Amino acid sequence: MDRRSLLKGGGFAAAGAAAVASPAIAQGMPEVKWRMASSYPKSLDTLYGAGVQVAKRVAAATDNKFQIQVFAAGEIVGGLQIVDAVQNGTVECGYTLSSYYIGKDPTFMFEASVPWGFNTRHHNAWMQHGGGLQLVRDFLADYNIVNFPAGNTGAQMGGWFRKEINSLEDLKGLKFRIAGMGGQILARLGVVPQVLAGGDIYPALERGTLDAVEWAGPYDDEKLGFVKVAKYYYYPGFWEGTAQTSVYANKEKLAALPESYRNILEAACAEANLWCLSKYDAENPDALRRVVSQGAVPKAFPRDVLEASYKQAFALYGELAAQNPKFKKIFDHWMAFRDKELTWFRIGEFPFDYFIYSQRN
Amino acid sequence: MDRRSLLKGGGFAAAGAAAVASPAIAQGMPEVKWRMASSYPKSLDTLYGAGVQVAKRVAAATDNKFQIQVFAAGEIVGGLQIVDAVQNGTVECGYTLSSYYIGKDPTFMFEASVPWGFNTRHHNAWMQHGGGLQLVRDFLADYNIVNFPAGNTGAQMGGWFRKEINSLEDLKGLKFRIAGMGGQILARLGVVPQVLAGGDIYPALERGTLDAVEWAGPYDDEKLGFVKVAKYYYYPGFWEGTAQTSVYANKEKLAALPESYRNILEAACAEANLWCLSKYDAENPDALRRVVSQGAVPKAFPRDVLEASYKQAFALYGELAAQNPKFKKIFDHWMAFRDKELTWFRIGEFPFDYFIYSQRN
Repeated sequence: MDRRSLLKGGGFAAAGAAAVASPAIAQGMPEVKWRMASSYPKSLDTLYGAGVQVAKRVAAATDNKFQIQVFAAGEIVGGLQIVDAVQNGTVECGYTLSSYYIGKDPTFMFEASVPWGFNTRHHNAWMQHGGGLQLVRDFLADYNIVNFPAGNTGAQMGGWFRKEINSLEDLKGLKFRIAGMGGQILARLGVVPQVLAGGDIYPALERGTLDAVEWAGPYDDEKLGFVKVAKYYYYPGFWEGTAQTSVYANKEKLAALPESYRNILEAACAEANLWCLSKYDAENPDALRRVVSQGAVPKAFPRDVLEASYKQAFALYGELAAQNPKFKKIFDHWMAFRDKELTWFRIGEFPFDYFIYSQRN
Repeated sequence: MDRRSLLKGGGFAAAGAAAVASPAIAQGMPEVKWRMASSYPKSLDTLYGAGVQVAKRVAAATDNKFQIQVFAAGEIVGGLQIVDAVQNGTVECGYTLSSYYIGKDPTFMFEASVPWGFNTRHHNAWMQHGGGLQLVRDFLADYNIVNFPAGNTGAQMGGWFRKEINSLEDLKGLKFRIAGMGGQILARLGVVPQVLAGGDIYPALERGTLDAVEWAGPYDDEKLGFVKVAKYYYYPGFWEGTAQTSVYANKEKLAALPESYRNILEAACAEANLWCLSKYDAENPDALRRVVSQGAVPKAFPRDVLEASYKQAFALYGELAAQNPKFKKIFDHWMAFRDKELTWFRIGEFPFDYFIYSQRN
């Protein structure tokens, strides 16, 4: 399309002219450079990639005037140190999962994932229209952070096990690499949660000093090759029925942005939120087929494991709420919203899913 | 926060200054005014509201230089005439549901909703990372339209019935206000689909010249007051397990935008896509409680209705594919993707949902 037809096609002369002149006219906009420290390595092109998507969209929407450079875990700070790095201004923003910081305060979990809590639809409804985002922002303000939901894995798998789990009894003494709140819940059922750095997991599983490991879903798990040493692939990963990742922006750095840039950042994060979930939902099916062709045996956790873990999860939350007013404030709100969601989704969404999954395609 | 602390807090002097000076520095950006014709009345604050959300974000992200004015159904063109209005440039863009245009070509349905097809997660995965968006865009290019997914209702309810439906037999001769592909499928089961304008539905239902009506979900349905004349509220609305709405942009008008504005529009639509779905998911639970308190009786369609409609749906798609190469091209791709999604979601997502919905909260 030549310049003439562009001008002719445009409803407004100004818009038509702008298409030709846009690199020039943006000169008045301020140049801003931010650094984003990600919790993830570049190989995780979905979670790491979601941060990159944010940066790309922000740059394209500002004629490259607002540039965010994304750094992989370890390049500036470790992957689990994003809260500290954003809080003290080492970086202007980070890309992370709040669950990593429950050691600071268990209240962090509500932003990302509550074991046996919301699925992704419930979580997004709570965050966006249920009051959840404001509650989480009030909490994160103490860390000098403003969060923008910017990714999700959907429900995760329950991990790779060397031996079958046939009942709750089989969890007793099981050395399971699982972090966070899920580990605390499983510990109440006799599991011995292990925390190992990424590179140590595979050899520990191979040697048998580890019985099982959970990571994410097929698309990410496949890259780590666990199928070769632990073929039983359990589901559901009930400790992560949703797992929302976020851009954490330093509060002052964010306030210093032009209003238009802040709006662009917010929209780009929301877009990445859906982009990331949809990428997992599109990539996991083929990845599951591939790991199964390599010997993976998908298996459902036995019912007593599900029931006992469900019971222990809510018992733990009750204890935490009794000790921690910040936790209680969000938990009470979250529980009330959850009751409503479950009632509605049993009617509005689940019967559709139930029927289609029961068909032989 | 005063100007000094803003400047002090900013990591970059340019950014700090910009926050104060932003209304001034944007003067170099071109002014663009678009009109968006919506398929919806203002009372539907979720579907109509999603278009408004797009306009708000676009304006805020461009210091009000790119303004989109949203018009309700009927203000410029009728709610079902958006394709024509965008195609011929009467408006720069519209907000609509592709299902309304299956009279032009049944291929339109794939962008919005396929009866007994995807749920919202599957649909978004296909559109965003499965190749669906490009296929749909290739199809819509013949109408001079570029689509941007910008909303979703989630799975809808099956509508309001004056009498109970206890078996497939009860569908015979049923005068049901249902539009689109769902009506064609139900006609194969003996239903007599009726097409009535909004204002005529309630009196027809009251008089008994209509036996049933489907609209959307509790939040929208409540506003129309159907509970007073048809209390049986059936689910699932299997003809709309997802229903994605879109911004339709005129191809030339879009091409005439500055690149940065096009990026902002695209991000704002993606954001509205999630905003709209989450709003339904947050509002429907309370609306369901309210209609039940007014006498609504939620009921599941009998199994034979689900099975027969499922069978007829895919039989119809097969017939349409045999007649229509455009339909066949997208359908074949869609079916292959669907097979993969169902296999994965049976393991990855469904068992989590199944368990939580089976608990008494």
